[in-house]
Amino acid sequence: MTVTHPQPVVVLVDSQMGENIGASARAMLNCGLTGMRLVRPRDGWPNPAAYSISVGALEKMPPVQVFEQTRDAIADCQFVLATTARARDMVKPSYTAREAATELGRRAAEGQKTAILFGAERAGLDNDDVALAHGLITIPLNPEFSSLNLGQAVLLVAYEWSQISIPAKDPVPPELLPAPHDKFLEMCERLEAELDANNFFRTGGHKSIMIRNLRNMLSRGAMTEQEVRTFHGIITALTGKKTAGQKQD
Amino acid sequence: MTVTHPQPVVVLVDSQMGENIGASARAMLNCGLTGMRLVRPRDGWPNPAAYSISVGALEKMPPVQVFEQTRDAIADCQFVLATTARARDMVKPSYTAREAATELGRRAAEGQKTAILFGAERAGLDNDDVALAHGLITIPLNPEFSSLNLGQAVLLVAYEWSQISIPAKDPVPPELLPAPHDKFLEMCERLEAELDANNFFRTGGHKSIMIRNLRNMLSRGAMTEQEVRTFHGIITALTGKKTAGQKQD
Repeated sequence: MTVTHPQPVVVLVDSQMGENIGASARAMLNCGLTGMRLVRPRDGWPNPAAYSISVGALEKMPPVQVFEQTRDAIADCQFVLATTARARDMVKPSYTAREAATELGRRAAEGQKTAILFGAERAGLDNDDVALAHGLITIPLNPEFSSLNLGQAVLLVAYEWSQISIPAKDPVPPELLPAPHDKFLEMCERLEAELDANNFFRTGGHKSIMIRNLRNMLSRGAMTEQEVRTFHGIITALTGKKTAGQKQD
Repeated sequence: MTVTHPQPVVVLVDSQMGENIGASARAMLNCGLTGMRLVRPRDGWPNPAAYSISVGALEKMPPVQVFEQTRDAIADCQFVLATTARARDMVKPSYTAREAATELGRRAAEGQKTAILFGAERAGLDNDDVALAHGLITIPLNPEFSSLNLGQAVLLVAYEWSQISIPAKDPVPPELLPAPHDKFLEMCERLEAELDANNFFRTGGHKSIMIRNLRNMLSRGAMTEQEVRTFHGIITALTGKKTAGQKQD
C-alpha cells in the first residue's frame, strides 16, 4: 500500500473510553492512516488504556492532537465527512463508506486535506458538528442490527480508504504456477492407460465420455509441475509398477 | 440488504477469549451473517463474556454450534476459505476479502454451502486446517502493521460479504455442485491409506506434509459427488481391489 497523497485525518469527538481510542488507532494504522485528532476526550490525553489497546499503533503514529472544539480540529481541512449511524434531517450528500473512500481519494489526488468525523460511543455526533461537514458517511449494515462500536466504525471507513490504492500483488513463485499443459496431459494419458489395463472403462458409459469427465475433474485444480510428478507417484504406488523416467515424490 | 441465498458460515477455530467470540458475533450480525460455528473454544461454550460483548447478537442468531474438529465443522460445506494473515507456502488460490466476497456470492447463487475459517487470536490457523480449505483469504492491509484482532478480521470479511449484490442465476443442478466436505475427506483418507500400504510415504519428505500437499492438490478442483465416486473407482481399478460399498463408474 503506497499512499503518497494527503491522507484523511480521523477526528474522534467526545470519545469516552480510552480503549475505543486505542482500537481506533490500531484500525487506522492497519489501514495506513496515521493522523488522529481528539476533541474533548472524556478521560484526558494521553490515556494509558488507549496505548495498551493500540498494541503499538499510537507509538508508531505522529502524536495525537487534542482540541477543545470540533471546528478547531478541522480548521486546516478542505473537505470533511461526518460518520453517522442514520440519515439526518439535513440536506447533505450522503456516501456509503465505499463511496466516501472514492470521493476522499479523488480529493486527495487533487491535494486536498480531508477529515472524517466520528462521534461519541452512544450519542454519535451532535447536529452542530454534523453541520460542519460537507457530507455524511453512513455504513450500510443490517438494518435490524446496525450498531457498531467506535473502533469497528473507524476500521470499516479506514479499510475502504485503504482499498482505493490497492497494492500490486506479490508475484507468485513459478513453482506455484500450473504445469505446462503437455505435462498435465501426459499424466492423464498415463492414468487412462493404466485404468484401461485394469478394465476401468468396461464398467459403464462410453470410454471417450469417461475420459473427458476424468480430464475435467483433474484439470480444474490446475496442478503444478510438482503435483503432476506427485500424481505420477500415486499411479506408480497404486499400481505397484515403476515407469521409466518417472520418479515418485 | 436482502440475502436469500445460502450464507457462508463463520467457523472460529481454537478461539481463546470469549470477548473475541462475542465481538465476532456482533460483527457478523451487523453484516447480516448468522451462522457461527466454534471449534474447541478454549473456555467452553456458552461463554458469559461472549454474550456480554455481543450486545444481543448471540441471542438473535441461531444457536452457535460447537465441534471438536475443524473437519466436522465444515463437513456439510461445499466450498471453504481459510483466512490467513500471510500467504502460505501452499498451492491454493488466494483472495482478497473483496474478491472472496465475490467468489462466495457466486457460489451462493449456485446454491453452494460455504464456510469461512478463522484461526486462534495469535497463532492463526494451523497448516492442517488451512489444507482443508479450497482457497485463502488475505486481507490487504498496511504491511508494516497488519495484525488485526479476531473480531476486526471477522468484521472486514463479513462486511465485504454484505456489500455484494448476488446476481439472480439459474440454479446449478445439485449433481454439478461440489461434494460435501466429509465425502471428499473420506476419499482422501482412503487414497492415503492405499498409498501408505504401497510405501508411497517412504520415498521422501514427511508423511504429514505429503498428505497436506496431496489434499491441497485434490481439493482445489472442488470435486462433485460423482467425481468423488469416480476417484474411488480409480483407486479401486489401480489397486486391483474392490472395496465394499464402492462402485466403479
